Amino acid sequence: MSCNVPKTDKKRVVIVGGGFGGLKLAQKLKRSNYQVVLIDKNNYHQFPPLIYQVASSGIEPSSIAFPFRRLFQRRKDFYFRLAEVKSIHTTEKIIQTSIGKLSYDYLVLAAGTTTNFFGNTQVEENAIPMKTLSESMGLRNALLDNFERALTCTSPQEKQELLNIVIVGGGATGVEIAGALSEMKNFVLPKDYPDLPNSMMNIYLIESQSRLLAAMSEKSSANVLKYLRSMGVNVLLNQRVTDYKDHTVYINDGSTIATRTFIWVTGVTAQKVNNIPADNLGRGNRILVNAYNQVDGMDGVFSIGDQCIMPDADPNWKGGHPQLAQVAIQQGNLLAANLKRLDKGKAMKPFRYKNLGTMATVGRNKAVAEFAGMKMGGFMAWFMWLVVHLRSILGVRNKFIVFFNWMINYFSYGQSLRLIIYAKKAKEVIDREERLAQMHQ
Amino acid sequence: MSCNVPKTDKKRVVIVGGGFGGLKLAQKLKRSNYQVVLIDKNNYHQFPPLIYQVASSGIEPSSIAFPFRRLFQRRKDFYFRLAEVKSIHTTEKIIQTSIGKLSYDYLVLAAGTTTNFFGNTQVEENAIPMKTLSESMGLRNALLDNFERALTCTSPQEKQELLNIVIVGGGATGVEIAGALSEMKNFVLPKDYPDLPNSMMNIYLIESQSRLLAAMSEKSSANVLKYLRSMGVNVLLNQRVTDYKDHTVYINDGSTIATRTFIWVTGVTAQKVNNIPADNLGRGNRILVNAYNQVDGMDGVFSIGDQCIMPDADPNWKGGHPQLAQVAIQQGNLLAANLKRLDKGKAMKPFRYKNLGTMATVGRNKAVAEFAGMKMGGFMAWFMWLVVHLRSILGVRNKFIVFFNWMINYFSYGQSLRLIIYAKKAKEVIDREERLAQMHQ
Repeated sequence: MSCNVPKTDKKRVVIVGGGFGGLKLAQKLKRSNYQVVLIDKNNYHQFPPLIYQVASSGIEPSSIAFPFRRLFQRRKDFYFRLAEVKSIHTTEKIIQTSIGKLSYDYLVLAAGTTTNFFGNTQVEENAIPMKTLSESMGLRNALLDNFERALTCTSPQEKQELLNIVIVGGGATGVEIAGALSEMKNFVLPKDYPDLPNSMMNIYLIESQSRLLAAMSEKSSANVLKYLRSMGVNVLLNQRVTDYKDHTVYINDGSTIATRTFIWVTGVTAQKVNNIPADNLGRGNRILVNAYNQVDGMDGVFSIGDQCIMPDADPNWKGGHPQLAQVAIQQGNLLAANLKRLDKGKAMKPFRYKNLGTMATVGRNKAVAEFAGMKMGGFMAWFMWLVVHLRSILGVRNKFIVFFNWMINYFSYGQSLRLIIYAKKAKEVIDREERLAQMHQ
Repeated sequence: MSCNVPKTDKKRVVIVGGGFGGLKLAQKLKRSNYQVVLIDKNNYHQFPPLIYQVASSGIEPSSIAFPFRRLFQRRKDFYFRLAEVKSIHTTEKIIQTSIGKLSYDYLVLAAGTTTNFFGNTQVEENAIPMKTLSESMGLRNALLDNFERALTCTSPQEKQELLNIVIVGGGATGVEIAGALSEMKNFVLPKDYPDLPNSMMNIYLIESQSRLLAAMSEKSSANVLKYLRSMGVNVLLNQRVTDYKDHTVYINDGSTIATRTFIWVTGVTAQKVNNIPADNLGRGNRILVNAYNQVDGMDGVFSIGDQCIMPDADPNWKGGHPQLAQVAIQQGNLLAANLKRLDKGKAMKPFRYKNLGTMATVGRNKAVAEFAGMKMGGFMAWFMWLVVHLRSILGVRNKFIVFFNWMINYFSYGQSLRLIIYAKKAKEVIDREERLAQMHQ
């Protein structure tokens, strides 16, 4: 195996990760003198802000995933490779990937983050994460499967375990999935499962800090708390989960909750790449970068988006930027311009984050939004949330289908996507994965 | 565990399988004096005629799957149970399922068929079947994964194996998937994979009889053969596959074809239920039934659709009916009426199949259709095929989304569904499956 990218006269930019930052960079390098290689472990770009709606059966995975090859059809001097990056070798200017070595002139690490289990292996093994499309489809399947089992299990204890849902982490993802699942509980399940006692179905949202959405204002936190409680979500603040075993969640105040649906959305850690010195890593294992997103001491290596942290270069953001789509997109944009400047022998420009605001939605007509000093709640925030997210989804077809699904759901609460379905792996694919895993042991 | 269906004064009809026949029966028993229990191993009804389009990335699984619970919302005296049926105990009038025992007054076996590997375990282990949604999603993933690997593998032999596709079985499914994959080869792959030599991508369709679509007229067979060859499919007639091992297909004339995408769509065998005497089974393990779809010697047991065969009761169909959706639907319809007659002490009516015709599509503007003595080909047949299938898909939302996808594909060949994606199984679900598997050993 080899990455099989032809060597030409052009300098090569290798982008690792096609999330918000990497994708924007690759797109903006279209009219440049660089050969561009984009590496991702999926063959599609995914849209994380709506992943929770896949888990709650609101939209389909394909509506928020867009194949890279389709995005870059007819693009010259561009190569997509389905692979994972293992390590960097700065002396040779080479990366080692799951499909072979690849040399670079400029390397951009934009691989984002992964779920942080804070070293708790019990939790890591048994919790359901919700960071990727694949995980959210798994959560959807597990949720529906648990409801089916609850109908026919004969032990009251097991039944309660199957019907309780515990979400750990009161950030945007935790708030949004709690809201979506409580809408499912209130509007869909009574019709789909008339024999399941709604009173046994409890949704818990556990947050270790004193308020939800700690990154937003106190007012937004209070609004969201009010919305969620009015929808019947049990919000526990100032509580920390210490363990999860034998279908029981252990909380630091000594209490426990029985559940078989333990959703872990509290905190992330940057994707790891071997051979990056520990000195180059900051908070949350994020790669330290300067104002130009350069990695100190690694010639030609950049990092953008959630995988990096710029702790003291941006005057308004001492300590680093929040891990948001907008930061990644703006860094991707600037780095494309800076690489073109480098090519022309010009000086690069430093990154200055322009805060376009933040928002989170809880349910229909219920959301919070903050931008330009304004704080909004209720219907207006919810409507803005819809427009902003619809605009950001790639592809006319996807925009249209998501909009169509949202309208149906808004007026009828009537999604018909509650399918328990797994793709069957072909033997050839299983064999190949095993071979690859052995190679990397 | 138990099936947890309340015992009432009403007689209970247990339907095993929610395909075309079982679903129609359950729907038509709405205004009856029966309690209805529908058992299926999936929580959704699937639409097999379009499964091949899921495999070729033309439509989404959710567009041709409809959750049973949504279909039967608000229905009184109706119970859906997600389970598999293991055995029948006619003396006690009980079935054993994966979630416990269930008694019946009337039992209707409508579980359809599964892929027939004719006892060849090599083929069974390594071939890719395409009978269920889960399998067709697996085929889609494997196809796309093979293209990605072909780009980067360094062995010319392996590259050819990855690019050859071999389809075994020249019935409707084989013809339709061959057509869909050749459209993908001709219109999509050159744009998505400009670096893959189109000349190395060969699609083989192997049929052991002397013509394709043996169930249709010679004229339609000839038309379909012409269409497929014009699209570049290598159709091999009068050839039988004897084995598949080490990525090589062995054919009875001594020739071989190297491939890692070996699609097996030749022949089916009826789903097996324990304790049905061998004397009650006919061709293809189908359960022998009389004109009323009753199983001889098993009181209160019926079978409809592909799982049964009615060899000599229908005067125009000596030897049994073809395994088509229409036969199952008409049998489901009649059995609902007959069960209502039984309830009122009236005599049942015998089944008479009304042939509404057959059709198969090869690609845009290319199809064959036969009905009322007419044989059609080309655009008209293709357009009829579209209308008939769109009408048959359940749910306005699904009809709309499939239509929308078809339009986009027709005008742009531009599906954006080419995602390699597997749902991640939650540990809780894996554990449960293992427990169930052990229970049934």
